[in-house]
Amino acid sequence: MMRRGGAKVASLLLKSARPRLFSTATTSTIRSMSHETTSHLLKPAASMNTWIWSGPGGVRFASTASSGEKTPSPKKTEDDESSTGGNKGIASYWGVEPSKITKEDGTEWKWNCFRPWETYKADLTIDLSKHHVPTTFLDRLAYWTVKSLRWPTDLFFQRRYGCRAMMLETVAAVPGMVGGMLLHFKSLRRFEQSGGWIKALLEEAENERMHLMTFMEVAKPKWYERALVITVQGVFFNAYFLGYLISPKFAHRMVGYLEEEAIHSYTEFLKELDKGNIDNVPAPAIAIDYWRLPADATLRDVVMVVRADEAHHRDVNHFASDIHYQGRELKEAPAPVGYH
Amino acid sequence: MMRRGGAKVASLLLKSARPRLFSTATTSTIRSMSHETTSHLLKPAASMNTWIWSGPGGVRFASTASSGEKTPSPKKTEDDESSTGGNKGIASYWGVEPSKITKEDGTEWKWNCFRPWETYKADLTIDLSKHHVPTTFLDRLAYWTVKSLRWPTDLFFQRRYGCRAMMLETVAAVPGMVGGMLLHFKSLRRFEQSGGWIKALLEEAENERMHLMTFMEVAKPKWYERALVITVQGVFFNAYFLGYLISPKFAHRMVGYLEEEAIHSYTEFLKELDKGNIDNVPAPAIAIDYWRLPADATLRDVVMVVRADEAHHRDVNHFASDIHYQGRELKEAPAPVGYH
Repeated sequence: MMRRGGAKVASLLLKSARPRLFSTATTSTIRSMSHETTSHLLKPAASMNTWIWSGPGGVRFASTASSGEKTPSPKKTEDDESSTGGNKGIASYWGVEPSKITKEDGTEWKWNCFRPWETYKADLTIDLSKHHVPTTFLDRLAYWTVKSLRWPTDLFFQRRYGCRAMMLETVAAVPGMVGGMLLHFKSLRRFEQSGGWIKALLEEAENERMHLMTFMEVAKPKWYERALVITVQGVFFNAYFLGYLISPKFAHRMVGYLEEEAIHSYTEFLKELDKGNIDNVPAPAIAIDYWRLPADATLRDVVMVVRADEAHHRDVNHFASDIHYQGRELKEAPAPVGYH
Repeated sequence: MMRRGGAKVASLLLKSARPRLFSTATTSTIRSMSHETTSHLLKPAASMNTWIWSGPGGVRFASTASSGEKTPSPKKTEDDESSTGGNKGIASYWGVEPSKITKEDGTEWKWNCFRPWETYKADLTIDLSKHHVPTTFLDRLAYWTVKSLRWPTDLFFQRRYGCRAMMLETVAAVPGMVGGMLLHFKSLRRFEQSGGWIKALLEEAENERMHLMTFMEVAKPKWYERALVITVQGVFFNAYFLGYLISPKFAHRMVGYLEEEAIHSYTEFLKELDKGNIDNVPAPAIAIDYWRLPADATLRDVVMVVRADEAHHRDVNHFASDIHYQGRELKEAPAPVGYH
């Protein structure tokens, strides 16, 4: 398959969106093309190659995957040894070699927590005003639970939106992880597919955590805020865990409303920025890379994309709740993986 | 950035390894190239396009992301409405549109639980015989815990390795999820990066779950086996959860030994296959797509790649334990993301 050359190469490279597989695909691309006259294809291949570390790990991976064999050849084992031998410190015995990636400008990709292919441009055209009107008792319960939580939050943070956003994300990153985990274990217990919802919910959790990692850079938490986070997480994790076990439709609905509140508070944040009450500082480097923002992006741009993310999570969770309301299971509806 | 045309296109496409972003990049590829004479680049673009659904959702995403604007133009909102309006049933209100993907042969990608860019070729050159010799008390405790668990397992399954493998995976998929979750919440509590370990452990859990989804196809669980899984999961989840909280170094070491046992039992599985005691049936379709196996792959090929995966998890977990043994935190060593 690797040998079919030009026409297939691009899609092959797409299929392999992982460091190891990049180097794999790239290697075999160059190989397959050396047998061809379509040298123009080297251009994409080359620029793809810039994404990939071709160090010992790369060599080993390339040699491995470019051979379709089932049994390792001595040569490859040799590569394997040399590569593992090449590692430093604790990695030397197990030979676990994290892939190093360089950006287009040649500098090393400095984020271990996310990879270039996990970055994206936020969909800013999303409708921010959408709202699910509570109809059932559970809807109202979810709605008023969130509303009642807002009052102490307003009281605590006043108009310190940077700090508020940061704290908000420590809570917002909980439901996705809990839901994803519970669906994962359900899938194991029942020997059934999840329809991609495990991934969709875990992605949500990761995305919210990235919001936190971003706001950390602009607002440093005080000791009592750290203490508060620990308390809140302890309570909310257990509450949501039980809530999701008892009624997923309620849990997802509540997150939907939580995200509606998040959109509101980020809109307030933007107002304060525009009024000049909050300095529109340059965007943190991590945000520029994660959302592919221009180098001169500011805090305002970051709040814009974060708010768009929250709007997407709002839709996904209300949608998930709707599925349950229709007496169906999440797995019956293909999950919106990669929907930010 | 989208407008820079040919040279950047390929890497752009790579960076955007997500359905929505694919269609985005593809659209802008074709746009940017319409201003160029380098029409040859249309070839990769086209073949990349075959990966992407260009339905209403696609249109919306494309129109969205191909505009670098901060504010939505009426035109785009119109697209948005028409696309969301085009959806069926519950999706219609929230407009959450899962991306549809077609394979090279034009057939639709039928797995929601994993995407083409999550598939890989297993590294079969990995050393299967590596073993961590227990040195400390905790090591020995971990080692003998696993060893003592093997005895009842052998007794229960005898030589029914297909079934054994399936049951094994319902257990093997637990630690990654628990570890990943705990690191996620730790990262939130402490306002600190995870070094990619959250993703690495969640990937392990997902990979083990894919093993289960594969063996499900060749061995159907009986009612008492389902009951056993529920019991075992209930016990093991809580035990591992506590274990990881108390001593991550012990938890990871134990998983390392668990994987060593897994390698052993898959080797036994292969022996039985070669002896002809177990039919070497054709590989399930899901396995062929996930590990990019040839169309005529058999159960034996599947067991080979699964065993290689387990060997990778063995290394990652012993490595993680080693990091703790050196009094360091996981985040200090870049995580082996995408290391299967």
